[in-house]
Amino acid sequence: MTETKVVAFGGGHGLSASLRALRRCAPELGLDITAVVTVGDDGGSSGRLRAARGGLPPGDLRQALVALAGDHPATRRSAGLFQHRFARTGPSAGADQHAGRPQAGCGDGLDGHAVGNLVLFGLMEQLGDPVAALAHAGTMLGAVGRVLPMSCQPVGIEAQVRGADPTRPDEVSTVRGQHQVAVTTGRVEALRLTPAAPVACPQAVAATLEADWLIFGPGSWYTSVLPHLLVPGLADAIVSSAARRLVTLNLSAEKETNGLSAAGHLAALRRYLPELKVDCVLADRRVVGDPDSLAGAAESLGARLVFAPVAVDDGSPRHDPAALGAALVPVLGAAR
Amino acid sequence: MTETKVVAFGGGHGLSASLRALRRCAPELGLDITAVVTVGDDGGSSGRLRAARGGLPPGDLRQALVALAGDHPATRRSAGLFQHRFARTGPSAGADQHAGRPQAGCGDGLDGHAVGNLVLFGLMEQLGDPVAALAHAGTMLGAVGRVLPMSCQPVGIEAQVRGADPTRPDEVSTVRGQHQVAVTTGRVEALRLTPAAPVACPQAVAATLEADWLIFGPGSWYTSVLPHLLVPGLADAIVSSAARRLVTLNLSAEKETNGLSAAGHLAALRRYLPELKVDCVLADRRVVGDPDSLAGAAESLGARLVFAPVAVDDGSPRHDPAALGAALVPVLGAAR
Repeated sequence: MTETKVVAFGGGHGLSASLRALRRCAPELGLDITAVVTVGDDGGSSGRLRAARGGLPPGDLRQALVALAGDHPATRRSAGLFQHRFARTGPSAGADQHAGRPQAGCGDGLDGHAVGNLVLFGLMEQLGDPVAALAHAGTMLGAVGRVLPMSCQPVGIEAQVRGADPTRPDEVSTVRGQHQVAVTTGRVEALRLTPAAPVACPQAVAATLEADWLIFGPGSWYTSVLPHLLVPGLADAIVSSAARRLVTLNLSAEKETNGLSAAGHLAALRRYLPELKVDCVLADRRVVGDPDSLAGAAESLGARLVFAPVAVDDGSPRHDPAALGAALVPVLGAAR
Repeated sequence: MTETKVVAFGGGHGLSASLRALRRCAPELGLDITAVVTVGDDGGSSGRLRAARGGLPPGDLRQALVALAGDHPATRRSAGLFQHRFARTGPSAGADQHAGRPQAGCGDGLDGHAVGNLVLFGLMEQLGDPVAALAHAGTMLGAVGRVLPMSCQPVGIEAQVRGADPTRPDEVSTVRGQHQVAVTTGRVEALRLTPAAPVACPQAVAATLEADWLIFGPGSWYTSVLPHLLVPGLADAIVSSAARRLVTLNLSAEKETNGLSAAGHLAALRRYLPELKVDCVLADRRVVGDPDSLAGAAESLGARLVFAPVAVDDGSPRHDPAALGAALVPVLGAAR
């Protein structure tokens, strides 16, 4: 069987859902999976690591690796280790009577770190190359695919937001940092990276150019999906690749996209990469407000609109990997 | 070929040298290697982890695992990752302009931690069982043998030391903690564990009872070798095992054994485990002060004395794994 090369763009939970769905249809479709991951995270464990030590924030890279981890019990256990987080330590929590005291006032510094973040960070330091580090981590996890950063340098994410301060709904201000942009309840009017034009990861560019399918979303639109379009080298490759392009829409508005319709999500793609053509938009009819406006937005990108029930059944706005995988089979397997 | 089951007792660099030598002669002798490791470390990365979070100090366990790591490039790279230490961070060292600041005043808490210590610590938390954690870490490293703790609970090491304070050479005082005992320049007059009678790791007891050879040393005598004899369940197994017993002597006195002759090292074994019988004592003639007194001490344990040139050639007091392996072949391969 000829391999179908798929590149999935995103970061965080949305990308994980996409990767878990893709690996389910990989055997049937003969997929070769590459994840290209945003490197703008500045919150939590990742944010502390990059703040103190520079380097790429590892959290979203780890999530993507774990989503692709092999099914063997040993690699499952390693995936569990990557996801294990060190608990918060109090002044005496878990202390050992036979040994000394932790540093006063700041726990022991491991609080809340995922082991996989520390492994990835250590590998990047050891090998001096994030791509080699991710390849080795993929081997450790028996990953069925590979994970690449969108850039080998960390980036900042900034937005012009109207009404970031709820008491001044009309004022436009700058919100800095992926975490702050992700949680703003104002309206994002413009998005940019710092530096403004980061260098794309060469292997991510090559994978994009060689792909049969490029997949955008689901995920936090401003902080996980659109940033890829703001990396000039990656944007060029996305536009010039002979691959077909799929957009998987979200199942609910998040804080950062509060008030942004499904059609608005597509318009945002077009705004940040006007040359973008899309072949297919995948949405769940149950959560789309206005199908006609969405169909129009899809059409303006050159895409056909496909509806499929891809949400989990408990009513929460999460993609069910099995359902999303089932929906992807006819899309990705369709003749050109 | 029938397997020869070898159990090596120790901790730290000495045990690593022994394991590196054993793995070299493993193919020729058909060795099945088990390392049983002290769990008294309270210094450095291990000491900080146990102080803040309880659990076994991982450093010596990590060193033993790395010594047994497989030769495949991927497992070599994982071994390098286990040994990689996070650098110390200054208030601005490596800081990332796009993200926040590290916690003030205490670096980020990762300073000096070996990645493998964090991996082992995370695995022990995740799986709730140090033996299962070490088995999984062994799989990650493709280890040619297994590593067990002497006890599944951490222990403290204390010594009565004469002249711990150099200005009062005749005074006997209590020195507490493996690190402090290891660096004392006074004379250790008595050694004990806290708790005084820790429970032996059941798998270490079983391995000892089933072994063909038990190997003690090289290593820090008071802090890495003798502690095994102070764990009642392990001491009983060492005495009652049908295995033959080898003692590999050190190449130089360390701080803690300052003034203790090679013969004195053997006498110390006998003092802490009077029922101990030894079959063979391996020493390097170039560093033995008084061969006759050593021969007498060996004889009093029931052992024959074997001399072999096992030190590295640069004059430093380290065992050369190749030379030690070559010396072990006729010893371990000898008919009973």
